Amino acid sequence: MDADTTTHRYEQLADLIVRMIDNGTLAPGVRLPSVRAIGAQYGISISTVLQGYRLLEDRGILVARPQSGFYVAATQGGTLALPSTSRLRSKASTVSISGAVAALLEHASNSALVPLGCAVPDAALLRSHRLDLALARAARQHGAHYNVYGAPRGELRLRREIARRAMRIGHALSPDDVVITSGCTEAVTLALSSVAKPGDTIAVESPTYFGLLHTLEMLDLKALELPTDPTRGVHVDALARLLDTEPVAACMLSSSFSNPLGSLMPEAQKRELLALLARHAVPLIEDDVYGDIHFMRERPRPFIALDGGANTIYCSSFSKSLAPGYRIGWIAPGAFAQQVMDRKLAFSLCSPVLPQVALADYLASGAYDAHMRRLRRLLEENLLRLTRTIEASFPAGTRVSRPAGGFALWVELPKGFDSRALFDEALEHGICFAPGDVFSASRRFRNCLRLSAGSTWSERIDKGVRRLGELARTQRTEDRGTLAVK
Amino acid sequence: MDADTTTHRYEQLADLIVRMIDNGTLAPGVRLPSVRAIGAQYGISISTVLQGYRLLEDRGILVARPQSGFYVAATQGGTLALPSTSRLRSKASTVSISGAVAALLEHASNSALVPLGCAVPDAALLRSHRLDLALARAARQHGAHYNVYGAPRGELRLRREIARRAMRIGHALSPDDVVITSGCTEAVTLALSSVAKPGDTIAVESPTYFGLLHTLEMLDLKALELPTDPTRGVHVDALARLLDTEPVAACMLSSSFSNPLGSLMPEAQKRELLALLARHAVPLIEDDVYGDIHFMRERPRPFIALDGGANTIYCSSFSKSLAPGYRIGWIAPGAFAQQVMDRKLAFSLCSPVLPQVALADYLASGAYDAHMRRLRRLLEENLLRLTRTIEASFPAGTRVSRPAGGFALWVELPKGFDSRALFDEALEHGICFAPGDVFSASRRFRNCLRLSAGSTWSERIDKGVRRLGELARTQRTEDRGTLAVK
Repeated sequence: MDADTTTHRYEQLADLIVRMIDNGTLAPGVRLPSVRAIGAQYGISISTVLQGYRLLEDRGILVARPQSGFYVAATQGGTLALPSTSRLRSKASTVSISGAVAALLEHASNSALVPLGCAVPDAALLRSHRLDLALARAARQHGAHYNVYGAPRGELRLRREIARRAMRIGHALSPDDVVITSGCTEAVTLALSSVAKPGDTIAVESPTYFGLLHTLEMLDLKALELPTDPTRGVHVDALARLLDTEPVAACMLSSSFSNPLGSLMPEAQKRELLALLARHAVPLIEDDVYGDIHFMRERPRPFIALDGGANTIYCSSFSKSLAPGYRIGWIAPGAFAQQVMDRKLAFSLCSPVLPQVALADYLASGAYDAHMRRLRRLLEENLLRLTRTIEASFPAGTRVSRPAGGFALWVELPKGFDSRALFDEALEHGICFAPGDVFSASRRFRNCLRLSAGSTWSERIDKGVRRLGELARTQRTEDRGTLAVK
Repeated sequence: MDADTTTHRYEQLADLIVRMIDNGTLAPGVRLPSVRAIGAQYGISISTVLQGYRLLEDRGILVARPQSGFYVAATQGGTLALPSTSRLRSKASTVSISGAVAALLEHASNSALVPLGCAVPDAALLRSHRLDLALARAARQHGAHYNVYGAPRGELRLRREIARRAMRIGHALSPDDVVITSGCTEAVTLALSSVAKPGDTIAVESPTYFGLLHTLEMLDLKALELPTDPTRGVHVDALARLLDTEPVAACMLSSSFSNPLGSLMPEAQKRELLALLARHAVPLIEDDVYGDIHFMRERPRPFIALDGGANTIYCSSFSKSLAPGYRIGWIAPGAFAQQVMDRKLAFSLCSPVLPQVALADYLASGAYDAHMRRLRRLLEENLLRLTRTIEASFPAGTRVSRPAGGFALWVELPKGFDSRALFDEALEHGICFAPGDVFSASRRFRNCLRLSAGSTWSERIDKGVRRLGELARTQRTEDRGTLAVK
């Protein structure tokens, strides 16, 4: 949907509907008038109405239901309260989390367990067949040509496709601004080791992705946990106060739909934060792996689009949206290009060539966009189902996040609840999730858990969530019964 | 050629031939009697004689020449003297080499230049087609199944194949002892960061692989350059004296056919070195990427086979022998398993799945062994040709290494010679090689160069080497003419 200078009738119709949603005339979940009815009402052709509806469907504003019509997408909703904002820790923590992370990952990849702990959509949802065929073709036809050390920066054709897509995140990139990595994990490792030295402090969201904490630990970096709102992300004021007293080597944040909270910082707040960091000459590293999985009108813009990359290192990957098995991520290191390239060369030399060629072919074919439209709808539906099942089965007082993207929910149970005990018990019942304490260097959030909805919704998953709620309700009851003992 | 308890006639014949080579009756390069003649002489069938000859061919003791017969392999030879043994530097150097490495790699991958600078055999020699077909098949048939985060340790089937092959290096490994990496570069990075912290000193060969120096620099480690003999490797006595005074966090050596010297430490010396390091509790990291490319009777055993892995971290890859484009290496971290796994997880999470599956299929098919027999012959021939061309065209006083494996030569020109100036001049003539100073943290070896013979020998390469020799001779003449100026 490239921009056009003239506004078409279907776009005018789309704008009208958006305004009606914004001012509350059309509520989430409401069915829109039929294409025929609207056509008659506004004197436009049925195909024009359909084009307008499809445009809004592409943007995630409307949802089409087969044999039923178009509905206003229900990105908001739920009757449970939001999780609380995390408190500030004014001191940086050394991280010691590696054992917990390894154990969790082992359970999360165990297909015998109900998969509420997985950090990626499953293969059935991702449907990577066209990509796999591109790989088969490249290997069969051009294997010898690509059996060389690739360019350390990555295959030019892939970097070109990524740069082309950067327009959609609102930031102009050239292929030479991009370095291909082994997933976002290598990108973040290169970024952190480029801006910080052992013993330094990195300011992070709280709760934050346990993999990031693990990387900080292995690089001997400290984590400074910032107070984080479950919808609006990190509190800029709190960061401002900290920067006046604490030496911080870098700030590491999600661009959108943080893991695990799903928070999305409003643009104005992003700008405020960028200005603050620039004043203190503290670089920002952002992780945008969830940005393409949005349920909003437009893809939210990452930080790099707002400061032009002056002080920002951008990291992303295709692991959450298409191909976890391919391990292809990328980094736009901006001012730190030399440091990042040096480390890429020294730590892994270059990335495997054929998977990059296959992904470049796939992206060039245009298949990714249709794929993402489908995936976003499925994951949004999954999250709604997960939310409703939690509402129906978890203890009173449970709070749950309402992300507008991604595929995970952050569930906060009443204080004193022990999600570690629940985790052990759930494993015995064949259910895996991520307990809250691995999302904090200071091992907070013991009363929280992250539930993922990355698998095709099924009876088994539904039952698993209900059983988890039941186990949680039982623990609450037992707690009340044995308060003196605990 | 699995071991059998009874000795077959063809094995008795092979033993006889080996004894005749060892006692000098059969000299290198000599043609063996025809299969028919030997059969008549010893009263054995032609097929038995052929089986015996093939056995020795497999071991690199004989070389078959089409329509000519079998010859005693000429692993030694050349009329030029060996390069000198490097001197001890009693102080560790901080490393600052990244710019030089990046520039060299860029030139080395420029296919417009005569490829004497490349560190991998070219695709025409590697003939990876069967591996590529295995990848195409795995992607087409099982793409969805493998579109998940792989096990951080790597695909079990591949680790099993690697463990199976470990018997050939004389060391029993289980699949769980192996971690798959992004080439040997990631393996070495994981090893170094597991045993050393920033500021520590690593003892290395001198000259040593510039990529290792680059990794040391990026990990903020110092290099202590050990005196190294061009055939026998590091001087154990010198290391012993150093360990009494210098704090050394680890020793990092080639298992066989070091890059760039091509040296191979005799087994007794390897044992001595292991005992010394064990006494000082200094771990050894070994890089065995060239071990499979040997021209000897048997594959030389790495250090890990001699100390049972008690104090050794073993790193290797398939990049030099089969598939540089696949970026598949591995590490057997022994006592450092936990530290290495933690870092693998934190720095790159896991490796791409389908390339691992393809390589496992390829190895299980048995194709690798036939492939290596062919490749070893070709590379040995290449090295002989390169040696002869250097003898014929380089200045008087040139010294050259005589490796029994690998595909590179270390060329030492008379003192005062400037290989940097030659490098710049050679580039203008469309020729790339590796100048000596990038093989040293203290930028020694300015009068040396590494020439690779990893490409199919051709008129173009022959002419390139001769032109290089000519340029070197000219520089010598000019030097004498302008001694006062220089």
